Amino acid sequence: MSQELNRDDVDVYIREVGLRDGLQNVKTFFPTEAKKEWISAEAAAGVIDIEVCSFVPPKLIPQFADALEVIEEAKKMGNLNVCALMPNLKGAERGIEAGVDQLNYVTSVSETHNLQNVRRTPAQSVEEFKAIVECRDRRAEETGKRVTLLAGCATAFGCTLEGDIDSSSVVSVARQFVESGADEISLADTVGYANPSQIKALCAEILDVVDVPVTIHLHDTRGMGVVNAFAAYEAGIRRFDGCLAGLGGCPWAPGATGNVVLEDMAFMFEGMGVRTGIDLKKLCTVRDIITRELPDEQLCGGLAKAGLPLNFSQATRLSAAAE
Amino acid sequence: MSQELNRDDVDVYIREVGLRDGLQNVKTFFPTEAKKEWISAEAAAGVIDIEVCSFVPPKLIPQFADALEVIEEAKKMGNLNVCALMPNLKGAERGIEAGVDQLNYVTSVSETHNLQNVRRTPAQSVEEFKAIVECRDRRAEETGKRVTLLAGCATAFGCTLEGDIDSSSVVSVARQFVESGADEISLADTVGYANPSQIKALCAEILDVVDVPVTIHLHDTRGMGVVNAFAAYEAGIRRFDGCLAGLGGCPWAPGATGNVVLEDMAFMFEGMGVRTGIDLKKLCTVRDIITRELPDEQLCGGLAKAGLPLNFSQATRLSAAAE
Repeated sequence: MSQELNRDDVDVYIREVGLRDGLQNVKTFFPTEAKKEWISAEAAAGVIDIEVCSFVPPKLIPQFADALEVIEEAKKMGNLNVCALMPNLKGAERGIEAGVDQLNYVTSVSETHNLQNVRRTPAQSVEEFKAIVECRDRRAEETGKRVTLLAGCATAFGCTLEGDIDSSSVVSVARQFVESGADEISLADTVGYANPSQIKALCAEILDVVDVPVTIHLHDTRGMGVVNAFAAYEAGIRRFDGCLAGLGGCPWAPGATGNVVLEDMAFMFEGMGVRTGIDLKKLCTVRDIITRELPDEQLCGGLAKAGLPLNFSQATRLSAAAE
Repeated sequence: MSQELNRDDVDVYIREVGLRDGLQNVKTFFPTEAKKEWISAEAAAGVIDIEVCSFVPPKLIPQFADALEVIEEAKKMGNLNVCALMPNLKGAERGIEAGVDQLNYVTSVSETHNLQNVRRTPAQSVEEFKAIVECRDRRAEETGKRVTLLAGCATAFGCTLEGDIDSSSVVSVARQFVESGADEISLADTVGYANPSQIKALCAEILDVVDVPVTIHLHDTRGMGVVNAFAAYEAGIRRFDGCLAGLGGCPWAPGATGNVVLEDMAFMFEGMGVRTGIDLKKLCTVRDIITRELPDEQLCGGLAKAGLPLNFSQATRLSAAAE
């Protein structure tokens, strides 16, 4: 079963998570002005779902010290779905206060990983998520603005600490999230373990049991990012996270785990006749901002280096995307 | 319709083309002893189909000046399918004389590209292929050894000079090759233009009209190598060319067009439960030979850098592959 979208000018949603998942491991502080420039340029290229920051305490990750300022600017851009990561209830409160459109809460299905990462069992994380839903509902009544809550199942396809993760555990956590009030679910191949058969099977299973939109969040650690996006699409998934230039660590850097290259994934879909709403040429030029600010990062991705094929015709109507 | 294999211990054939397609654009001469070492190490890892050289005149590509010596050594290795590229009838004669198991003849379906590349129309190339078949048949009668002839359709998914290539042209060339006596056909995405939908459609069409084995030959120029291999597999293709470390130019080097990374592709299949006959860990160590001889080449591929997932279990029975 494939999922409905509430826009009629695209066939898939591609969300940029580079400003959060990409930058969170980058030691160099990406200047606030450059973050704004990145968001603005990518929105102009047609990427209108952007995770712009994390509410992880700046003490832990200084990269996000400017979260409020970045959100403020992103909100001014109008037709943008401004998303942020919330590590906990406190982060949710800050995010709602800041006026984001969507908050992203991530729990690792692997108990070992979740305990190591946030010192909670997955069940305890689900309990916290319930508190977040209550907080959101209360604030929605007070302010009239209802923030969308996305609940992510990390290590859904395997874990570096536990190895295989049983699909029934993923289904269980996803179901609990939905029953607790999640508006959307995401499945993350956090460490790049997944293969396309596994992706197809688990995505189909999840789409069968949950009745909310499901996003797939892929890492390219072992070169499977794009193929797993295709497999997810075949299984009916219509929402994809990605990261310009595969930021967040490139497989060419030892041990790093980059996100799937957004522009290559978008190129695949556009070639297939699947509308992303993105102007691929414009999108590739946004990489210049990353190159300028992070000259020592090795950017990933084939499309930007090779350019579009001769006479390539996008499925997306570019005049509309360019507006 | 998926294709039958004549080995019962694998589900797909993966052929190493790095010593030919990978090295042909490398200016540094890869020492003959190192070529032998590469072939031997990769065969020990279970890759037993290897294109070991090209019969392009050494004046044009000095890298292949040692073709005869490399073939002689590869033949000694026993259970190896020794393949070589032949650019023309003269190359075919040399290859048959040298005693290879398989000769690979490539024609570009794009007339403009074929004219530029070998100064012939595709129709003229098919005529030459007929002469090659006659030569092969004559020599088979004389010697009792029948060399297998693989006919490749290059630019089957698009061309940098012509743009789109009509699938009917590909079908026409493939059909002519088979009618002329080709034992096998290959479809090549020479310049990395293909997307998985296109791959599925054309592979299915070709498998419907030809009754010989079909190989897919992919380049990773725009990051589509692995996904296109998956799409081809879904369409029924069971033979795949690849190149260790994506040699032949990395998308990270401007304008270069690397082959699909063999070890990442094999990892995908093994994860899916599809037996390649390859020991992935052993295979990754073979990269050391390339690193040693070509220290300035940037090697591609995620698996070798990240390693196998925790508790990863290969579909291939490794004790057998290790023999």
